[in-house]
Amino acid sequence: MKKTELIDQIRSKNSYLCVGLDSTYEKIPEHIKKTERPVFEFNRQIIDATAPYAIAYKPNLAFYECRGLEGWKDLELTAQYIKSTYPEIFLIADAKRGDIGNTSAMYAKAFFETMNFDAVTVAPYMGRDSVSPFLGYKDKYIIILALTSNAGSADFQYIKSANGKNLYVEVLEKSSLWGSDENTMYVVGATHASDFEEVRKIIPSHFLLVPGVGAQGGSLEDVAGKGMNSECGLIVNASRSVIFAGNGHDFAEKSAKECENMQQIMEISLRNKKII
Amino acid sequence: MKKTELIDQIRSKNSYLCVGLDSTYEKIPEHIKKTERPVFEFNRQIIDATAPYAIAYKPNLAFYECRGLEGWKDLELTAQYIKSTYPEIFLIADAKRGDIGNTSAMYAKAFFETMNFDAVTVAPYMGRDSVSPFLGYKDKYIIILALTSNAGSADFQYIKSANGKNLYVEVLEKSSLWGSDENTMYVVGATHASDFEEVRKIIPSHFLLVPGVGAQGGSLEDVAGKGMNSECGLIVNASRSVIFAGNGHDFAEKSAKECENMQQIMEISLRNKKII
Repeated sequence: MKKTELIDQIRSKNSYLCVGLDSTYEKIPEHIKKTERPVFEFNRQIIDATAPYAIAYKPNLAFYECRGLEGWKDLELTAQYIKSTYPEIFLIADAKRGDIGNTSAMYAKAFFETMNFDAVTVAPYMGRDSVSPFLGYKDKYIIILALTSNAGSADFQYIKSANGKNLYVEVLEKSSLWGSDENTMYVVGATHASDFEEVRKIIPSHFLLVPGVGAQGGSLEDVAGKGMNSECGLIVNASRSVIFAGNGHDFAEKSAKECENMQQIMEISLRNKKII
Repeated sequence: MKKTELIDQIRSKNSYLCVGLDSTYEKIPEHIKKTERPVFEFNRQIIDATAPYAIAYKPNLAFYECRGLEGWKDLELTAQYIKSTYPEIFLIADAKRGDIGNTSAMYAKAFFETMNFDAVTVAPYMGRDSVSPFLGYKDKYIIILALTSNAGSADFQYIKSANGKNLYVEVLEKSSLWGSDENTMYVVGATHASDFEEVRKIIPSHFLLVPGVGAQGGSLEDVAGKGMNSECGLIVNASRSVIFAGNGHDFAEKSAKECENMQQIMEISLRNKKII
């Protein structure tokens, strides 16, 4: 998907919401557990209900791998369903992969060829050759971990280097030279709203994937105020707060309502910035 | 597996060799491609031939994920085969995972419960809560990336912090306090032999998983000389140079011969250190 197509979708839905499909089997409604493929059926109903408000979906691989072959099958079916039913939607594999060059090339093949994801999250620790094999695919994106939303982000991402920069700043500065804003995005957690201005100084035009709103406590208004650029430049993710909003027969409508609430806040911020 | 059991195996085989099962479908011998499950059949024959010399096997997940469901099935069959046929052998999932706490817990479930791996490689960038869910499993190990064998390791792992320490040193110092040498190991690449003395000052008793010997150019003798401790403390991996040593009907014997050559060098270094 081209960056302009992503922006077009944001403008047509007045939204920059990503729904995180962290679909834990144990948490899905009882009546769905009785169907033939419960996790895929749950995802399908969530997707159909929330697609008017969501511009992206993001299955996190861990929630599929933990069930082995069956989980992997649910992941493939979910990715296929989204790309065949809603081809305009941006599909992110939240996989946080990264390995030596010849191995990362196999991960790129897994996510961009075997499955038709538009983007994959990658960890920066192993450096340029761990990331560059992903950049060889046209209209595909890597989303590099810069400043993550969890408490552990303080352990290394805020280590000050000898030249006074936080490690996450070094990651942004160096890795933004490997690709461009047409094939690279960054993860910046909503729990670090005070850092968004610093981030935007370094990468004014890259899209940011922002987790940490909702269950993790980040504020959507703060993120929009400090992180938005003239093309929006934000994909804000919510996972558990959306997909487990209800657990009865109306679970999908409850998820849609939760998305609509977020979309309305997003619409205001897009209007304030004159993007729509 | 307990650390003492791993050391017992090293002493009984006079070896600290790990065989990396980076089993690219395209590279396996033609006659094996005609069998029902070529990658599993290739792995099974390699394992049976090399088990006298290897104390560990390490499938890298990328080489299985790139073939989707079929690849994942080969991985599960391979892990099951090793644990049922050679239960004394240390089984490493080279997955380089790491995510926020509740998500890393799902990865831990995937590798330690759904599949019965003894250890999984993890990336440190997201900090303590991305790693700690793996530490809750008795007799299981995380192997944290410290100093990787690839060229890109120079991009961030050697960034000097304000207190004069390389990032990889910060990772060793901080993360070694999260667990102990009974549940934590580290990846240190053979291509950085000159850093092994520095590493051993910080973590004298942890096991090191050492990639980068063979195809990547690291020297086994250097690693043994500088990285070995009184319990050996080394698991040296070779992947492509072993598993693709031949591609005819005798491919497995050629792999075994390659392993025997490495084992003989390892035996000398173990005798020199009076470990055997």
